[in-house]
Amino acid sequence: MPSVSLDSERFRRRFDTFNKIGATERGGVNRPSLSDENKAARDTLVEWFREAGLEVRIDTMGNIFGRRDGTDSDAAPVLFGSHIDSQYNGGRYDGVIGVLGGLEVIEAFNDAGVTTERPLEVVAWSNEEGVRFQPDMLGSGVYCDIFDLDYAYEREDKESRRFGDELERIGYKGETPCEADDIHCYFEMHVEQGPFLEQQDIPVAAVEGVFGFSWLNVTFEGQANHAGPTPMDMRHDAFVATADVTRAVRRITATEGTDLVGTVGSVDVWPNAINVIPETVEFTLDFRSYDDAVVDAAVEQIREEVAHAAEREGLEYEIEEIMRVDADPFDQGCIDTVVEAAETVGCEYTRLVSGAGHDANYLNKIAPTSMIFVPSVDGISHRESEFTEWDDIVTGTEVLLNAVQTKAAE
Amino acid sequence: MPSVSLDSERFRRRFDTFNKIGATERGGVNRPSLSDENKAARDTLVEWFREAGLEVRIDTMGNIFGRRDGTDSDAAPVLFGSHIDSQYNGGRYDGVIGVLGGLEVIEAFNDAGVTTERPLEVVAWSNEEGVRFQPDMLGSGVYCDIFDLDYAYEREDKESRRFGDELERIGYKGETPCEADDIHCYFEMHVEQGPFLEQQDIPVAAVEGVFGFSWLNVTFEGQANHAGPTPMDMRHDAFVATADVTRAVRRITATEGTDLVGTVGSVDVWPNAINVIPETVEFTLDFRSYDDAVVDAAVEQIREEVAHAAEREGLEYEIEEIMRVDADPFDQGCIDTVVEAAETVGCEYTRLVSGAGHDANYLNKIAPTSMIFVPSVDGISHRESEFTEWDDIVTGTEVLLNAVQTKAAE
Repeated sequence: MPSVSLDSERFRRRFDTFNKIGATERGGVNRPSLSDENKAARDTLVEWFREAGLEVRIDTMGNIFGRRDGTDSDAAPVLFGSHIDSQYNGGRYDGVIGVLGGLEVIEAFNDAGVTTERPLEVVAWSNEEGVRFQPDMLGSGVYCDIFDLDYAYEREDKESRRFGDELERIGYKGETPCEADDIHCYFEMHVEQGPFLEQQDIPVAAVEGVFGFSWLNVTFEGQANHAGPTPMDMRHDAFVATADVTRAVRRITATEGTDLVGTVGSVDVWPNAINVIPETVEFTLDFRSYDDAVVDAAVEQIREEVAHAAEREGLEYEIEEIMRVDADPFDQGCIDTVVEAAETVGCEYTRLVSGAGHDANYLNKIAPTSMIFVPSVDGISHRESEFTEWDDIVTGTEVLLNAVQTKAAE
Repeated sequence: MPSVSLDSERFRRRFDTFNKIGATERGGVNRPSLSDENKAARDTLVEWFREAGLEVRIDTMGNIFGRRDGTDSDAAPVLFGSHIDSQYNGGRYDGVIGVLGGLEVIEAFNDAGVTTERPLEVVAWSNEEGVRFQPDMLGSGVYCDIFDLDYAYEREDKESRRFGDELERIGYKGETPCEADDIHCYFEMHVEQGPFLEQQDIPVAAVEGVFGFSWLNVTFEGQANHAGPTPMDMRHDAFVATADVTRAVRRITATEGTDLVGTVGSVDVWPNAINVIPETVEFTLDFRSYDDAVVDAAVEQIREEVAHAAEREGLEYEIEEIMRVDADPFDQGCIDTVVEAAETVGCEYTRLVSGAGHDANYLNKIAPTSMIFVPSVDGISHRESEFTEWDDIVTGTEVLLNAVQTKAAE
């Protein structure tokens, strides 16, 4: 194969230019899905795609594809990319490096004057983060037929603005039907969002799969009496029961499986006054493991803990599993390709399982898929202080380039 | 003394008419301080005061006084009353029965054609509840020189509307300086807001004093990482530490003194997302006892628990005591007067200490003071389902009448 190589400085310039859009004072970006800043980022990306000679198409979900033809135009393309929407005041790396890294892979082929056998396509999926419109991974979800288009259009943000309307407002409701094409395989480079790579001082991981998880909503209802005259033995305190369950999450994660993690992330207390016993608490539970049986066991145990806590405190309760996703092993062929690409690049690498979900999860249902992780310093993500060494991003992109080159020649 | 007696039906009619103002669908009232509904309630009260022949004066804090002269105009008056502002969607009894009961006492003297030696004054204090403008008991607080008038005027609600501006808007910024007059004594009839009277099936209590309390604000700061890829041993979860402290409150109240109560009432979690480890939690602690040493010991213990929880979880923390009020025994003479009044009425009675604060606490600093409690069914208060049997309110008002009559003759 002819030598194809990245231009790290061009890549870096684009990365810096891109992240001026919606830049925050503390070094992050604020470009939530379908915001004005997200539109500006999309405009820039489309411009760069066209400058790189890509044929741009935008589908009815606003997913942006850039196509570079192969010597065999009819062959199923190699697809790679990620997303460019951000958390509110999120980091500069999450999603962005996968899309701009994909564009750099295209530029590397351009520079080398190499036309691959299969067409190459770079993609930026809509609404991956799910902070403005729930659920997350909505663009890839519709593409992979997990959600209906109408369902997606009807999602509303907190100001009751609909996804479909906002997509039209920013001019990204495209013409191309949002449905799965015949894809040869899909790769996604992403920040790890965990600490393992940095702890082991390794720049790249081949991702073997994604944790399964369960999301639960719990509501406790007690009695909102005055915190002064109500004796302790007459209280029905919804927050005390919430504290009990929170402690139980730590007990369960300590005993139920080495990779099990559990989190109480969202907690709303009513009436939330200093001198009133909490009447109602709504809170969430998140359990994850690569072993579905471990998640099941954790959910079963926490249901018992919720019931016990409610009984102790004299409360009504509801517990509802609002999402349950099984562990998702990626395609062994794609994993092997990433491993071989890392060996070709000559970098240290390891194999990891992802604790977080990605667009790659949905793509994995319709095409052979794997991911490439690069380190997240201190394991931090979804925050302005999210950081990855530039050298590691370049190394990850080189691995992506090699994996794409291999698959495009199949 | 000539026979002076209440007209229970007139009292009831007024109570029902009054509580149509700001009535909620579920049987409560919504008349927070300086709202339009609070203005309407004030207008009605002033009209009734005037119809009962009272000389109305409104002070610069919007406290409303109604004066009935005595045979000795220069003698210090006997003052009695409570407040008419409500919680958001609060109950119909809290405060209201003390003010309308006071008006009924005046009417009883009118009916009997009896002029007391000392003047009588009924009062409705501004902003007792403290739900819209903090702190609570603001009207009686300025009157008793606990707060400056300017401080009170500058209090803001959540929409940044100032107390002084809102008081002017509803037309209740009066001319009379808000400062303590020479008062012979103060009585306040109020719902117990606790379960003791109902549990013992007793209609009336002479209140001997009010619990001391400490209010603390605690902030834990950890790291908001992704709930999936962050292993349990690398977490800095501000909510787990909050759960630890909440459990510790229960341990401390179980061991540190029989009347000690402790509550975590307000809890705010950031970023409050299902899949993000809580970075920051701000929460409140409320400890109360009639023994100041017991409150001190609880505060000392919880400070240690906060520090330990922060250390275990690897968090920064702040703990601040935002209010500390000592236990407040009422005047023995006034307590005895209430007891004697209950004996004259011939009702069952007991003696109680109040877990909740009242305007009477501040009045107790400038004049001999006591309170009369009537039962709260199920100990419920600050909610639409707050309820007191009408017969118990009448009994409590009879005790108030007799106590006032005794003191007005001194």
